[in-house]
Amino acid sequence: MIERIAILGTGLLGTSAGLALRAAGFKGAITGWNRSPEQAPTALKMGAIDSIAADAIETARESHVVLLAVPVFAIIDFMEQLAPALGPDRLVTDVGSTKGQIAAAAARLYNQPGRAAFLPGHPMAGKEQGGAALADAALFRGAVWIFTDDPEAQRSAFSAGLATAWRGWVAALGAKIVDLDAARHDELVAWVSHLPQFVSTALSALLEDRVGEAPELKDVGGRALREMTRLGASPFSMWRDIAHTNTANIEAVLHALEQRLAHLRENLRTPALRDEFEQANRFRRE
Amino acid sequence: MIERIAILGTGLLGTSAGLALRAAGFKGAITGWNRSPEQAPTALKMGAIDSIAADAIETARESHVVLLAVPVFAIIDFMEQLAPALGPDRLVTDVGSTKGQIAAAAARLYNQPGRAAFLPGHPMAGKEQGGAALADAALFRGAVWIFTDDPEAQRSAFSAGLATAWRGWVAALGAKIVDLDAARHDELVAWVSHLPQFVSTALSALLEDRVGEAPELKDVGGRALREMTRLGASPFSMWRDIAHTNTANIEAVLHALEQRLAHLRENLRTPALRDEFEQANRFRRE
Repeated sequence: MIERIAILGTGLLGTSAGLALRAAGFKGAITGWNRSPEQAPTALKMGAIDSIAADAIETARESHVVLLAVPVFAIIDFMEQLAPALGPDRLVTDVGSTKGQIAAAAARLYNQPGRAAFLPGHPMAGKEQGGAALADAALFRGAVWIFTDDPEAQRSAFSAGLATAWRGWVAALGAKIVDLDAARHDELVAWVSHLPQFVSTALSALLEDRVGEAPELKDVGGRALREMTRLGASPFSMWRDIAHTNTANIEAVLHALEQRLAHLRENLRTPALRDEFEQANRFRRE
Repeated sequence: MIERIAILGTGLLGTSAGLALRAAGFKGAITGWNRSPEQAPTALKMGAIDSIAADAIETARESHVVLLAVPVFAIIDFMEQLAPALGPDRLVTDVGSTKGQIAAAAARLYNQPGRAAFLPGHPMAGKEQGGAALADAALFRGAVWIFTDDPEAQRSAFSAGLATAWRGWVAALGAKIVDLDAARHDELVAWVSHLPQFVSTALSALLEDRVGEAPELKDVGGRALREMTRLGASPFSMWRDIAHTNTANIEAVLHALEQRLAHLRENLRTPALRDEFEQANRFRRE
């Protein structure tokens, strides 16, 4: 049913999606567009896309499905540009890391009579560095791909069918689909994704200040240190939009961890330390 | 020169040391003793030791080198029991995770005329679970093995030779020897080893409280979450003595991280967030 897909943003996720669609047997056309010109030829050479689109809006018009694979604010910009340009038999979907503002824009601009459909999506996959060159057809295999669809969405029969077909392709990529409310999504990813990232960033930055002048001493920390600071390599450009669009949830989880660390610090010599270790052990056992 | 080694504590580190010594070509006798009886036969079956000693003090008397591979407080107990029992041509060394109290006990009880030599050691290697069954001859390959020797130690020529020979064996295991002052050791490991552990414990315990009731949602966090909470599986029994013997340093590093997280939380929408990411990136680049 989906004959033509436009991938707007051929970075790590967009290019991986193209590669994974091909690996899963998608036979239709895939066009790609990218703001930084060096990324699109890489995606083309890798076989993730068949052609490079000169104009993002134009290629979106000609496609059944438009996948927005750019940072959150760029997704919202595209949503605003595409809404008046697309007919009702089109589906726009995305891979944005936060969903509250995107779901709100979808309700305002899409999913109503005469407008295209929008299905907010978020694959929980990535690497600590972006870019088409690191793309991988297996990136979504075994990963969770969250959709935060609106039960009140009004769609043409054709675009509703496109949404069902897109879910089918996501399952075919090997991802495990989870449906969540957008607000619950943003709260949950603050705990299980944003908190681990910001902790690793804070820990890495602190260690750079305190022991960074003696790089050979990093060897002393071994595997534990390397693992706990790996996400410290994540670029700001990937996380700025997340910090701006999920601020209240991230503030809450960081504050909760600060309090937990203080509790642990105040109980290094009391039985409460045992309780903390046992509670942590339970998290890993399940 | 070393003909007989006694390993007191045939858990993960003690058994791995026995296996690694054999793999590196040590031809002398290795006896093993363990408080929990089930661990010593495992070490024997794996070939890490040649025989199980019924009495720890007795086997120590008969050995050139005694390796104390038990938690810190148990090391200090052994140091007190062994000091009056051993002659000056003996070397006692250890694998304890903190060195301040051990170095102080060494100065008080060893390294003086008529007494055995003590060389405080700390291999920066381990796993999140202990026990002989997980022992590995390659555990120390590429790992740092810290010594916090006392430049004022007074030793017999023979026991000084044993200390040199033991360093040679540690190098032969594939470890990278680093010499540090005991106080500097404890400060440094608070940053690069204890802080990552306690952060992972606090993060895992907090997540167990907040999202633990929905285990399938852990999939959402993916690799980043798994890595940042792996150390959450570490048992309290391994960390209690560390918390008790390096309390002031651990309090200081935890407090520093609490402040860093608060700074990050207060700057989620300011340019300071970029600075934190860039500082973290620098730590990973070196």
